[in-house]
Amino acid sequence: MSSRTLYDLAGADAARRFSPFCWRTRLALAHKGLDHQTVPWHMSDKDAIAFSGQGKVPVLVDGEQVLSDSWKIALYLEATYPDAPSLFGGEAGMPAVRFINAWADTVLMAEVVKLVMVDIPGHMTEADAAYFRSTREARFGATLESVCANREQDVERLRQALLPVRLALRSAPFLGGDTPHYADYIVFSPLQWARCISNFPLLKADDPVADWAERMLAAFDGLAAKAPGYKIAA
Amino acid sequence: MSSRTLYDLAGADAARRFSPFCWRTRLALAHKGLDHQTVPWHMSDKDAIAFSGQGKVPVLVDGEQVLSDSWKIALYLEATYPDAPSLFGGEAGMPAVRFINAWADTVLMAEVVKLVMVDIPGHMTEADAAYFRSTREARFGATLESVCANREQDVERLRQALLPVRLALRSAPFLGGDTPHYADYIVFSPLQWARCISNFPLLKADDPVADWAERMLAAFDGLAAKAPGYKIAA
Repeated sequence: MSSRTLYDLAGADAARRFSPFCWRTRLALAHKGLDHQTVPWHMSDKDAIAFSGQGKVPVLVDGEQVLSDSWKIALYLEATYPDAPSLFGGEAGMPAVRFINAWADTVLMAEVVKLVMVDIPGHMTEADAAYFRSTREARFGATLESVCANREQDVERLRQALLPVRLALRSAPFLGGDTPHYADYIVFSPLQWARCISNFPLLKADDPVADWAERMLAAFDGLAAKAPGYKIAA
Repeated sequence: MSSRTLYDLAGADAARRFSPFCWRTRLALAHKGLDHQTVPWHMSDKDAIAFSGQGKVPVLVDGEQVLSDSWKIALYLEATYPDAPSLFGGEAGMPAVRFINAWADTVLMAEVVKLVMVDIPGHMTEADAAYFRSTREARFGATLESVCANREQDVERLRQALLPVRLALRSAPFLGGDTPHYADYIVFSPLQWARCISNFPLLKADDPVADWAERMLAAFDGLAAKAPGYKIAA
């Protein structure tokens, strides 16, 4: 048993791990080379993570420390394990990555959610599916089916929103440069989220972003690729 | 005379300098503490910068070196003057700033252009105004007036597009952290562009992005604030 434990959102199949925010933390832990075990967690089981003082994953227990919020966890890992490779291209590189985090959380996530929401309940436990549907339909003021009704057209909005990623990848294989860093994990995470719970492909196969996504799937001995899921591009 | 000369887009009033890409370079030179003079340049005077092998500003002459393209100039300044403060939060910080450059050039510039294009010819020499109108109307397939016809509504799209900036500024006074760096100059430049050639205010006065823009106007002894222009927020 490692002294580190990550509570990780899981589907009805406990091997299906699909939270984009948990994926950021898993890739950050791999980047830092930090052993850990994951605990499959179901969204409606708030009691299981009540000790963290809030109700969302990722929750990381690192020895005595209990942390939540993927961005705060990234800052914690960077500060606590400074001798492992930097997540941000060094301390002074962090603010620009924080901007990318804000961009992905607002622009990218807003587009991806409209493409895959409808496919999520079918991969959840019965209790989670009911919880997810009722909370998300209240938030959107619409059924999951109607949120995703135009996804064949709406997917073009995501592909357009990824233009800055496409341009940045003309200069280097990763957003972090020659090797990936936390900016890559941030931007990859909504694509991996979608891959893990939807067979609706987000990218065209000839998109350079799809090539980069394949590199991200392969990183850390295929950590992301080994997760049960579908395809990012078609 | 300094050994450095920047060819800088100017209006009919030669003191009016409004190229967003030139502003990035001017702020980068100030950040690095590099003496230079600027040469006012008019857009239709391609002969004056033909020595650079291309037809756009900024063109920076630094001793024997002739450079164009604001991003390439930033990389050059960082590599050539490593002992001056870093533009990117250090070498490894550059890739994340490159992403922000791509984001601003596509998302932000596309929104701002629809808000201010119509006001540009009135600030130019006659020759430039004719050149600008004919080339831009051909590019847009529409008159400048029709491109900007809905700007009272379209400005909301820009304000929405600035959401990641707004979120990042919750954590620090600048995108670069406690002090500005090239990410700030990138994102500020389209706002300064608009300020210098349009009296159409882009931001609401109570927007935290407007507060940050004020800090950017004040930076380097008011370098940007001293330029003839209007207001960014109202």
